[in-house]
Amino acid sequence: MKLSMHALSVEVFVNALGNLSWILEKGAASAQQRKFDPAVLLAARLAPDMFTLTRQVQIACDISKSATARLAGQEPPRFEDNETTIEQLVARIGRTVDYLKSVPASAFEGSEARDIKLPAGERTFEFKGLAFLQRWALPNVFFHITTAYNILRHNGVDLGKRDFLHAGRDA
Amino acid sequence: MKLSMHALSVEVFVNALGNLSWILEKGAASAQQRKFDPAVLLAARLAPDMFTLTRQVQIACDISKSATARLAGQEPPRFEDNETTIEQLVARIGRTVDYLKSVPASAFEGSEARDIKLPAGERTFEFKGLAFLQRWALPNVFFHITTAYNILRHNGVDLGKRDFLHAGRDA
Repeated sequence: MKLSMHALSVEVFVNALGNLSWILEKGAASAQQRKFDPAVLLAARLAPDMFTLTRQVQIACDISKSATARLAGQEPPRFEDNETTIEQLVARIGRTVDYLKSVPASAFEGSEARDIKLPAGERTFEFKGLAFLQRWALPNVFFHITTAYNILRHNGVDLGKRDFLHAGRDA
Repeated sequence: MKLSMHALSVEVFVNALGNLSWILEKGAASAQQRKFDPAVLLAARLAPDMFTLTRQVQIACDISKSATARLAGQEPPRFEDNETTIEQLVARIGRTVDYLKSVPASAFEGSEARDIKLPAGERTFEFKGLAFLQRWALPNVFFHITTAYNILRHNGVDLGKRDFLHAGRDA
C-alpha cells in the first residue's frame, strides 16, 4: 500500500468503475422490478442539454482509459460507442478495467512531472502529470460516475451513498 | 510539484471547493437574471429523499475538512449548519479552504499508512490512510460537489463542465 501516481489513478478508477457497474446493475434490477424497459434509464438525463446515462458511462470509461494512457505514455484502446443495454455498458466498464489493470505500475514512475497536452476545442491545456491528475482526471471521472448515479436516483432507483462508495464490499 | 498525500488531498479539495464556489455564484447570478429567489435553488434536490443543494455544499465542506483532519491527525473545526443564502455557503467554503490551507504539508507525511477508523452507523470501517483517500475521501468530496452541480444544472443554471473543472482559471 504505497503512495504512487498509479495508486491515485488506476487504483482509484478501477474502484470507482466497479461501483459504477454495481449501481447500473441495481438500475437494471429496479427496471425489472418496476416493469419498465431499462432503456428508459439509459436515455434519461438531468437536463435537456446534458448527456444521457449511456453517454455518462461511456465518457467515464473513456476518461479513465485516456487519463491512464496519458500518464503512462501509451495510446489507449478505442472503443466504439454502440452500447444499447445495461449489460453492454457493464461489459464496456469491464474492458476498461481490463485495460487499466494491463498497464504496469512501473509505467507511472515519474509521471507526476510528465508534460501532458490536452486539446480542448480551440485551445490546448498544458499540465504536468500531477496537476493533470488533481484537476482534470480525478474530478472528471467522478463527475461522470456521480452524474450516472444521480440520473438513476432521479429516476427512482433505490440507491444510497453506500452503493456509490460500495464501502461494504471492499473497505 | 511533488506527489504526496497532501497534494492528493488538500490540493485536490481546495481546487474542487473553489470550483464549487464558482458554480454557486453562477447559480446566484442565474436566479437574479431569471428573477427568482436564489433560496429556491438552495432547497432543490434531485429526488425527494436526496439532500438539498444547501446540504450538499455543507457536506462537501465537512468531508473535505474531516478527511484532511483524519489524515493529518488533527481535530477538524466544527461549523454550524445554519446557512440560508448562497453568500453564506460561499463563506463556509472559504472557511473550509482556510482550514485546509492551515494544515502544514508536513503533517501528512506517512499518512498513507495511518490507521483510520470511520464510524458508519452500526459498524466501523477501518482503512489505511491511502485507501481512505482512494475509496472514501476523494469519491465522497466529488460526489457532493458534482451533485451540487447537477442540482443547479437541473434547475436551468447555464453551466458546463468547464465550470466544474474551472479549467480556464488555473490550467
